[in-house]
Order: sequence, then structure tokens, then C-alpha cells
Amino acid sequence: MTTYDRASTSLKFCNGRLSILDQRLLPHQEQWHDCADSKALILHIHSLAVRGAPLIGIAAALMLAQRALQGASTAQLQTEWKALRASRPTAVNLMNYLDQLQPLLNSGNPDMLRDAALNIFDNDRALCLGIAEAGCALIQTGSRVLTHCNTGSLATAGVGTALGIITHAHSLGLAPKVWVDETRPLLQGSRLTTWELARAGVEQQLICDNMSASLMAAGEVDLVLVGADRIAANGDTANKIGTYALAVLARHHNIPFYIAAPSTTIDPNCPNGAAIPVEQRAADEVRGVSTAQGSLRFSPEGCSAYNPAFDVTPAKLISAWVTEHGVHTAPEQLPLRT
Amino acid sequence: MTTYDRASTSLKFCNGRLSILDQRLLPHQEQWHDCADSKALILHIHSLAVRGAPLIGIAAALMLAQRALQGASTAQLQTEWKALRASRPTAVNLMNYLDQLQPLLNSGNPDMLRDAALNIFDNDRALCLGIAEAGCALIQTGSRVLTHCNTGSLATAGVGTALGIITHAHSLGLAPKVWVDETRPLLQGSRLTTWELARAGVEQQLICDNMSASLMAAGEVDLVLVGADRIAANGDTANKIGTYALAVLARHHNIPFYIAAPSTTIDPNCPNGAAIPVEQRAADEVRGVSTAQGSLRFSPEGCSAYNPAFDVTPAKLISAWVTEHGVHTAPEQLPLRT
Repeated sequence: MTTYDRASTSLKFCNGRLSILDQRLLPHQEQWHDCADSKALILHIHSLAVRGAPLIGIAAALMLAQRALQGASTAQLQTEWKALRASRPTAVNLMNYLDQLQPLLNSGNPDMLRDAALNIFDNDRALCLGIAEAGCALIQTGSRVLTHCNTGSLATAGVGTALGIITHAHSLGLAPKVWVDETRPLLQGSRLTTWELARAGVEQQLICDNMSASLMAAGEVDLVLVGADRIAANGDTANKIGTYALAVLARHHNIPFYIAAPSTTIDPNCPNGAAIPVEQRAADEVRGVSTAQGSLRFSPEGCSAYNPAFDVTPAKLISAWVTEHGVHTAPEQLPLRT
Repeated sequence: MTTYDRASTSLKFCNGRLSILDQRLLPHQEQWHDCADSKALILHIHSLAVRGAPLIGIAAALMLAQRALQGASTAQLQTEWKALRASRPTAVNLMNYLDQLQPLLNSGNPDMLRDAALNIFDNDRALCLGIAEAGCALIQTGSRVLTHCNTGSLATAGVGTALGIITHAHSLGLAPKVWVDETRPLLQGSRLTTWELARAGVEQQLICDNMSASLMAAGEVDLVLVGADRIAANGDTANKIGTYALAVLARHHNIPFYIAAPSTTIDPNCPNGAAIPVEQRAADEVRGVSTAQGSLRFSPEGCSAYNPAFDVTPAKLISAWVTEHGVHTAPEQLPLRT
């Protein structure tokens, strides 16, 4: 790797070219795709081949760097910037990171754009480590942690957010045990989190999303720890569909419910959860499954289905937010950028 | 059909022989299996080819009648009675129905056993209709009903329990709209309830189990209506895994949560939910899916998984129980048999 190359679990930037690990095919296949241009990356974002709120922002930034290095004009860069910024409506890191690059698009200096994108990558690694170190305060020896979706090294440039805390706690000898929600419809828990935890040697048990309540009632869950796609200024938090149910269930059972995310996930321009747009996805994702080994439809052909990709958890149900700045137990403590 | 033949959506008793619709293969294939003996039926119960708390009880009763008509000895009938009675631990209708037949096993009169089994079948149809008529009091015009698992004509000899109320309300012109939980891991909602509702012409939308909370928060659910596998004397109710989560979520959102079941689902010998045994099933069901069109595993090979088939909802979270006797708003009102 040269000074200008970067590699994470699911993303490579090498000789000025971006390639991504196709997360739809895990855990069965580890297949990398070169991303020829912004259009290719946007298709990968839409299909969730590239996923994870921080990761899509980093990938989009690196793609703009690639395009500048390839000699794209300022007008082209502006057009692609807009298209990339709109590729996923809920996650705010994407918009934050691209907004950082906006002033450089007209510079005519590809190296500046590249350095800024690499800085976003490097910064994300540092953010992840900061979250992991701060979040370990929430983990006791042998803590039984319930998590949802995938928030690990696949979803970021570094160790991850919620899952980064867990693997960091494991590396410190705290021996956390993880209940992994499978996370229908796209099974990020079943496919990705299990894959990461197995690689890290963390003890885990996979469950269906509808099993968490009975585990809580049985006293088998010490805390719930999940990521975020956008945190509004008042602390309301959008995350993968199913998160809000866990927050309500945790409150009912007096179990702490924590969000872990870099401060770049906080949107100071968004006053509350009602202002967060929630992406609606295709009915086919609910009607069946699609993996590297094939697709199956469960429901009758043409069956109507509803598929919101995210939900919003009100701040009052959140025990604390973990950012790289520490553990914030009230929304007023959130590190809003000004 | 002769006087001694019976047929429902998922079960036939014809010329003294039982056959069952393989519910694992729906909605893709409608395949019937003759049940040669008790052992064959027990395998079908274990695999969930035959499922639904009332239905497995009725099928087991008809199988004993078939065996008696085939000339099985009293000793054989007693042995098979025991094996059938133990084939699913949580659902109590099975035990109730077989206990009704126990005094007849030693009679040496196959016709008496057959008539008693046919009476159980006929009685279940009447119970379903009674539940459907009583439960319609809970449905307003255009009510948006959330249901879980399958509690329709596939699960009983008649119109069903919770789903029977819905289709009955539809036939009365009340135009209910149904949110159908897919019901992981075995997808009874996605595969079976959607199939039944489509046949009945009821408006429905399929969702993943983890989406119900956000629908409740958005004011899109007027009531939750589910079935039961066993109701303890104090009203605590065991039902398909995921039911308890819905009860907690409904309470949080001030949405009524109703159980619909025949009085034969009430176990007066079971003081409370803690005394209800919960069947644990194979990890493979959580690791992937299996349908008529094939099987897929999502998670890494050998991934540890936890798979309780049922959970228990405490009586305090249940707004009312609907039986063939009416709508009971307190556990003290439950029609306990003595």
C-alpha cells in the first residue's frame, strides 16, 4: 500500500480506484467489485452490496476522488456529487461527508479531493476506535448484549460502531456474549454480524427478530446495543427497521438501550425524528430472501407487502448515546457540530 | 361424503382413513399425504406438516379412530395414544382431545371411538363459528388488524380462531384490513395466512415481524388479534414465538391485544404461564428457510442459534380472550372446564 492506498474489511482504495466487497453475497462468497464510476457505486448502494451508514459515506467520498483523479470535469463532479448524495435518504453520514467535499469540487485539484476523501476514511477509523473505547464502559464481564443489524467492520472503515464496542470489549477479556437478531428482511444480522463475530471469536447465538422479547422476560439480556443511521438534534434516532421495537421492549423490561454512532451521524439540521425521511424498499425483499446461493419467495405471488427500511426511536427510550466523545446520557449532551 | 367422512381445508377423514395437507409446502404446492399410522402422523406433527393447536388434536383423535377401525388391539391403541399425546408439548388441545378418548380405548368398540373423534371434529367447527361470531364485536368497519402466525381454516377443522374472526367480519361486510406478520422462522404468516386471506378476498399487507412496532407508532394498527396454544388458569397465554413482543408493544401504544381460542385451549390444571412447557426446535430453522421450492441457509455454517417455538404472554397484557362463549375481559371470566 502506498500512502494513498487504503483497505478495510469491505472497501479498498488502491491506485486511485475504489473496489467494494459485495455484502449481499456474505457469508457464502467474498466477492469484490471494482467501481468504474459513480453510477456503478450508486447501484451497489441501492442493492445494499455497499451498506452501513458510515461506509456508504466513505465510499461515495472515495468515488468522487477517483473521478477527479480520472480527469472528470468540475461539472461532472458536481452532477455525480448530487446523485451520490441522494443515493440513500435516511443515513446522514453520506450527506455529511459529501458536504465536506463540496468546497473542493471546483478547485480543479484532484489531489486535494483525494486527500480529503482519505482523511474521511482515516477519520472514520479513529471515530470507530473512540466509540469502541468509550463504549466499553457499558460492558461488564460476561455481559449479555443484544444487537440488531450489522454495525461492525463491514459497515465502517474501522472496527465498527455498536459491534466495534463488543469486539473491543472481547479483546480486553470482558467476554461479552451476543444475541444476534437476524434482522429481516435482508438478514444483516444472520449473514454479516455472525460472520464478523465468528472471525473475532466472540460467543454468539443467532435468534429471529421476534424472539428478543421472551429472552428479555427470562432475564437473558443485560443490555441492547445498536447503531444509527441518523440522530436528530433532539436525540431521536433512525436505525434499521426493528430497532424501535427493541427500545420499547427494553424499556418494558428495565434493560438499558444504547445507541453507538460517530458524531457524524448526528444531524443538527434535523430537529426530531419526524423530520427524518424513511426509505421504503421493494416488496420482494419481504416476500422472500435472496442470497449468494439463490432466491426463494415464501408468500403467494403478487402478495402485497410493506417494507420500510428504517424506524425512528424517540430519545426518551434511549438510555445513552455512545460517540467518539464518550457516553452521553441526555440528548443535550450530544456533540452537535456547529 | 358418507355420514362418517369429514373434510376441512387441511384434513380429510374418508372411509376411515386420515389424510393431511402438507402445510410446509404451501403456498407453492397443495400436496396431501395419507397417514398410514400414528408414527406417520407424529412425524408430520414434528415437521409441522400438520400444525395449528386445534388441528393436531383433531388429527390425533381421528388417527386413533383409524387405528381402531383397522383392528389395532387395546394395548396398541394405548401405546399410540401415549405417543400421540406427547408429540407436541405446548399445545393443550391435543392433550384435551386425547383425554376425551382415553375412556373409550379399552371398549373394544371401534365405532364408538370413531364417533367420538368425529364429534371432536364437528365440535371444533362449531367452536370456530362461535369464536368468529363472538369476536366480530371487536371489529369496526375498516378496522386495521395485526395478526401473527396462522390461526385460520388450516389450523382448525372450521373457519379458524383469530383469522376466523377476521374472515367472518369480512363476510359481514366490515372490510377489515390485515397486517400479516411473516412469523419467522417457519413463516406461517407469509406462507399460510396470506394464502388464506387471498382466497377469502381480505385486504392484507405482509410485513416482517420487526415492522409492527413502527406501524403501531404511526397509528396504523387498531387492534392485535392472535391465537393461543395454551391458556393457563390465570389467563397467561402461550402462543407462537413473537406473540409476547406484540403484547408488550400493543400495551406501550395503547392498542388492544386480544387472544382468540376455543375453551379447549384453556388448561385448568396449569396455574400460570411459568408452568407451560415451551418446545425448543432445531437451530437450522433459524439459520435459514426451507420451502417447497428449496432451502437456503443464511448464516455461517455451524452458527449457534436459539429457537423457542412459543412464548408466554402474561394475562395482564391481554385486553380480552375470545372463546365460543364470548369475549372475556378478565381471566376470572374464562370458561374453565371442571
